Amino acid sequence: MIPQWIIERKRDGHALSEEEIRFFINGFTLGDIPDYQMAAMAMAIYLKGMNPAEIAILTDVMMRSGDVIDTSAITKPKVDKHSTGGIGDKVSLILAPMVACCGIAVPMVSGRGLGITGGTLDKLEAVEGYRCDLSTEEFLRVVDACGCCITGQTGKLAPADKKLYALRDVTATVPSIALITASIMCKKMAEGIDSLVLDVKWGAGAFMKTVADARILANSMVSVGREMGKGVSALITDMNQPLGRCAGNALEIRETLQCLCGEPCADLMEVTMALAERMLLLAKKAPDASAARSMLQATLDSGQALAKFKEMMALQGADVAMLDEPDRLPTAVLQNDFNALRGGYISGVSADHIGRACLTMGAGRKRTDDTIDFAVGISDLAKIGDAVEPGQRLLTLHANDAFKLEDAERLVAQAFTYADEPVARTPLVAEQIG
Amino acid sequence: MIPQWIIERKRDGHALSEEEIRFFINGFTLGDIPDYQMAAMAMAIYLKGMNPAEIAILTDVMMRSGDVIDTSAITKPKVDKHSTGGIGDKVSLILAPMVACCGIAVPMVSGRGLGITGGTLDKLEAVEGYRCDLSTEEFLRVVDACGCCITGQTGKLAPADKKLYALRDVTATVPSIALITASIMCKKMAEGIDSLVLDVKWGAGAFMKTVADARILANSMVSVGREMGKGVSALITDMNQPLGRCAGNALEIRETLQCLCGEPCADLMEVTMALAERMLLLAKKAPDASAARSMLQATLDSGQALAKFKEMMALQGADVAMLDEPDRLPTAVLQNDFNALRGGYISGVSADHIGRACLTMGAGRKRTDDTIDFAVGISDLAKIGDAVEPGQRLLTLHANDAFKLEDAERLVAQAFTYADEPVARTPLVAEQIG
Repeated sequence: MIPQWIIERKRDGHALSEEEIRFFINGFTLGDIPDYQMAAMAMAIYLKGMNPAEIAILTDVMMRSGDVIDTSAITKPKVDKHSTGGIGDKVSLILAPMVACCGIAVPMVSGRGLGITGGTLDKLEAVEGYRCDLSTEEFLRVVDACGCCITGQTGKLAPADKKLYALRDVTATVPSIALITASIMCKKMAEGIDSLVLDVKWGAGAFMKTVADARILANSMVSVGREMGKGVSALITDMNQPLGRCAGNALEIRETLQCLCGEPCADLMEVTMALAERMLLLAKKAPDASAARSMLQATLDSGQALAKFKEMMALQGADVAMLDEPDRLPTAVLQNDFNALRGGYISGVSADHIGRACLTMGAGRKRTDDTIDFAVGISDLAKIGDAVEPGQRLLTLHANDAFKLEDAERLVAQAFTYADEPVARTPLVAEQIG
Repeated sequence: MIPQWIIERKRDGHALSEEEIRFFINGFTLGDIPDYQMAAMAMAIYLKGMNPAEIAILTDVMMRSGDVIDTSAITKPKVDKHSTGGIGDKVSLILAPMVACCGIAVPMVSGRGLGITGGTLDKLEAVEGYRCDLSTEEFLRVVDACGCCITGQTGKLAPADKKLYALRDVTATVPSIALITASIMCKKMAEGIDSLVLDVKWGAGAFMKTVADARILANSMVSVGREMGKGVSALITDMNQPLGRCAGNALEIRETLQCLCGEPCADLMEVTMALAERMLLLAKKAPDASAARSMLQATLDSGQALAKFKEMMALQGADVAMLDEPDRLPTAVLQNDFNALRGGYISGVSADHIGRACLTMGAGRKRTDDTIDFAVGISDLAKIGDAVEPGQRLLTLHANDAFKLEDAERLVAQAFTYADEPVARTPLVAEQIG
């Protein structure tokens, strides 16, 4: 097979055969097909698309480019959750222990933040000692011991995706439904799970700007997962404003602990509960949604979920004393309130501006080799629909550098819009697919 | 400027600015922008196209990536002809000396054949001693001395095109109107000419399979040439059957000499005359088409054009005795006639099959590093419309290898189609643009 003839077929809008996709992706992974041919192919895929059968084959080939974790020794149903990324999204940290308390194994391979979206691993690393570089054996041991584990992707998991993602990033071929689907699903399918719940974000702070776009991506991922024999559900959730009241790594650990201690933040818990409920139903651990909710609520009320979180963190090397005394978590030197410029009702909180303010203060990475300041971020964020008086606090900025704080203030000043009349809250979960 | 943001704009169908095109192409030529980013950009250009203004800028940037020949010392009008390539196309060899005899300077930078299409330089190299690696100074000296010169592209001429063409070849991005236009025109514009006549081929033996496709390419090239301040005309000509009665390098030199000696082959001379006429009109050397024809015919009748061809060849180092005694040109050992399988009228002569037969015998290159056998090819080719008896000769194969001859025979057997009723000859020049 000649690589450029396969590129030509995709360029002309034809569906590629299984043999062609295997030849191309395996050749690229091994270095036999050079970057420039993969780049032309990625652009052709971006502009001409792939049908569900092609995407399923692409996902399978990328999954098999590395290890597929053998979880057969774990007898519990194995269910994971994946989010397409947003601002203030600490759902995994609350959800994994809750679901584990209900008799489900959650083998979660998470990622780091890049740009304005936060990363689950970065948040957990705010707790001293926590390790996300577990070997496959360690990973399975933690899941077996406590029912959940959150770790990073090892080099052996889907190397084709690692190589392709780096290339897509510099060739303007990231936002392709086919390539996003394969990239997410090849890693999740390599975890050895039975079922998967997807949180597909839409809005100003998300990759998909409209519900319609999010729906296309959700349908694509659900279809591929089912093609590969897994139970898959997707929720389309709102990411126009940040999730919860905190953004920034240590601040989000604090918020996680509050939620697990029964001081829930409404919007954050609404999304967490909706996703966890789908996990229980896919694992057949509850007869219906309302029973699932009761089981999940009980893990919070009883303190079991909090204990499970600490157990998991301890097994992954974390200094659990920091979780018992959150004041010992990294804390910023400067804490400035940002107050309402006028009175009325909050009609918009731009997740994009809040995310960029956090990035400016050092909560995230502009480049992959930047280091993170775990202490910085925002807390006590007002939400859409809140009634505010002039001068009332809308958020608190946490910074370690006065200049960066000033830059962040300029950004958060643009984040809020106001209305004179009460503003209705839009539903957080827009749609359920599968 | 960030390369991937520029790729993204083209991917989304936007017109690129002059600054963006300059940054991208110059970066690629210097090696600052890697092959994989150029490959993604080429695919985006292929699928989203470029408007005439963008193509003109692209052409200009590629032209300026190397030397632009300074022909200001030559006071005659400087006009060139370019063909998009076909089988049996030896028009340049006849046309350049004829036009030079009419007081026009023809500084012609030609190419080599690749695949089934022949190359002007390969044909001329069948004559011993002929050099196509002239320096710019030598090139200008020959044009000044005799009015015409046919040489090869130096490394200094449009290096951006050399680099980009090699990449397009392996990324399925060759047949893009924008990229073909820029590739052809950047080299022609670098020759320092005033005007250009384009021969855009259509048909089974050409790159453009329909008149409609050829028209799009012709319009694009004419528009870019004019944007760059040059006089440009294009003719769309038929390449369903080969041009003339010979294909293969030394055999085409023989046919050239016959035409210059007043034994013209009708279709070959029809195309040659039509193109040469446009050159005279663009250079304002004739008041109208019929006057141009008379001047051109006079160069043949008087023997001036033949003398000019020999003069040019001598200045470029050729052994002119070979032109005086064509039997001394490379001659194949095996000469087999291929005869009509039935009687009737020839309704089709597939240029593609004839071209592949010549390639099989060694007349061209399958890869750029193949060597050419100048002696092999076909001669005495029957043309569409010819009445034939069963067993009458349709062509003669010239080969130096019995196995290759057999392969070629199998190919030419598929080249001919027959009709019972007389077949009308379609016009060779389908359209004139500009």
